[in-house]
Amino acid sequence: MHPFTKHRRESVAALGEEKLIAAIRRWLGAASPRTPFGIGDDCAVLAPSRGRQLITVDPVIYGRHFDDAVPPRGVAEKLLKRNLSDIAAMGGRPVAAVLALTLDARTSVAWLEKFYCGLAACARKFDVAIVGGDIAQANGVLAANLTLLGEATGPRVLTRTGAKIGDAIYVTGVLGGSRASGHHFRFTPRLAEGRWLARRKEVRAMMDLSDGLAKDLFALAPPRAVAALDAAALPRRTGVGVRGAVADGEDYELVFAVARRSAEDAFTRAWHRAFPRTRLTRIGHFAAAGRLPPGALNLGDYRGYEHLR
Amino acid sequence: MHPFTKHRRESVAALGEEKLIAAIRRWLGAASPRTPFGIGDDCAVLAPSRGRQLITVDPVIYGRHFDDAVPPRGVAEKLLKRNLSDIAAMGGRPVAAVLALTLDARTSVAWLEKFYCGLAACARKFDVAIVGGDIAQANGVLAANLTLLGEATGPRVLTRTGAKIGDAIYVTGVLGGSRASGHHFRFTPRLAEGRWLARRKEVRAMMDLSDGLAKDLFALAPPRAVAALDAAALPRRTGVGVRGAVADGEDYELVFAVARRSAEDAFTRAWHRAFPRTRLTRIGHFAAAGRLPPGALNLGDYRGYEHLR
Repeated sequence: MHPFTKHRRESVAALGEEKLIAAIRRWLGAASPRTPFGIGDDCAVLAPSRGRQLITVDPVIYGRHFDDAVPPRGVAEKLLKRNLSDIAAMGGRPVAAVLALTLDARTSVAWLEKFYCGLAACARKFDVAIVGGDIAQANGVLAANLTLLGEATGPRVLTRTGAKIGDAIYVTGVLGGSRASGHHFRFTPRLAEGRWLARRKEVRAMMDLSDGLAKDLFALAPPRAVAALDAAALPRRTGVGVRGAVADGEDYELVFAVARRSAEDAFTRAWHRAFPRTRLTRIGHFAAAGRLPPGALNLGDYRGYEHLR
Repeated sequence: MHPFTKHRRESVAALGEEKLIAAIRRWLGAASPRTPFGIGDDCAVLAPSRGRQLITVDPVIYGRHFDDAVPPRGVAEKLLKRNLSDIAAMGGRPVAAVLALTLDARTSVAWLEKFYCGLAACARKFDVAIVGGDIAQANGVLAANLTLLGEATGPRVLTRTGAKIGDAIYVTGVLGGSRASGHHFRFTPRLAEGRWLARRKEVRAMMDLSDGLAKDLFALAPPRAVAALDAAALPRRTGVGVRGAVADGEDYELVFAVARRSAEDAFTRAWHRAFPRTRLTRIGHFAAAGRLPPGALNLGDYRGYEHLR
């Protein structure tokens, strides 16, 4: 659905700011608590956190993260879920979100209604309160920035730091072809898996895959180490080659390092009991730099998604 | 300073994402804690909150909130301070912020350096940690959305709700001419005043002035009430008329309702002891709708800043 309208009467400019905010509150419904715990004051008020907090921000921008082929509901889901995926990557649970919208005056009210109703449904599903936001105008733009607040669910927050040379590399789900398949807005963030993994001592470091293994794995690698991947082992989406699996991006899967000395078999058995329907694949290990085993995939030959071109 | 460059070598596109993020960490310096408490992981990690939390988000957009006449440092200060003003309006203290940047590939690195160094200096001044963010690309756009997390400083969070008919209306500072005078990026958010006011029982409701009295006061008025203002009492910036004082917007002053039965004299004496240099003006009171006293300024004759036009 195209987000801009040629008919002024169908635009946000015709509706005006005050009525638009009233409509947004209606569209969000139960996903937005009452003032001052939700929209309508200078700040939203949140209860004290129970433990350490997590915060992340990610946008969706028309022409970059979505186009007319993605339904407005899918745009909203993608926005919330890519932030949820960041919370999942630390083993946390989501709590509350604020949404900053930047839009052209020609933005269609019908598009926005579908967007906000989709956001509300997704927020209720994942137990996120939409507590506030902002609306600003800019010509030719339709962008939404969502800041998501979460909290730790256990004694440990799992970070990107901590992998060691020799650790096995595991990934959830299948990789590649996210855009072409619609996975980029239909995926389910790995929240339950992330929480479970944060409680497993043999898991040393974790992140979510957003720009593709070829780029993201550098952030997970220990100092002076490289990822030695087995190309044949890569779990690929149907019709996707090795290049797509490592470079397409927007996988929103978890990738993590498991201490090899631990009983990997026991780990994978426990995984399959906990998540019988979530694919888990051992795709390689971290090797000392300059000691890439023969036959290992050289990620240096590929590039993940580049944000500034 | 113009934010876009014609010379590719001076642009963020030439620098590339990875080096830009490294530069941002350098520019932010001590204003950004180390990973995972700052930039560099899927989420930033924050300590548990001490009390109830406050969250707000506001943007600055090129062509709307700033232009080439505002120095990049001033843009950054405006961005952080307009969010701080929202925290001040609830009587809170700021804690941490995340920054979502949307930029054109032609954005000049020199402009961004001044922007981030200005943000860092302002963040240190107001004791805010810049803990994370996001960078996304969009053609012809330069926009920054800052989400600010704060917390309550006392037993009470002061909201927009609670004023009663008969309450006196007070405002800090002077009003109008914010754009023309440069106040819109040079102002100091009223954090100390806000905290103090939240502890005074006679203060019933408060907000900050961003769109002008003519629009904002409707949000502070109790049900079935109107603001009866004394035009002659309005504290106006030099050279500004009544219309400017109520309609220009971007004042970033506090406006609040004080219970009239309380000893207003004692309240103002206590104020002047606490804030000898912050002007405080009683500009009117809330009257029952339809009972505007003769001679009172009718705010319905004016309009504050309209966001969607």
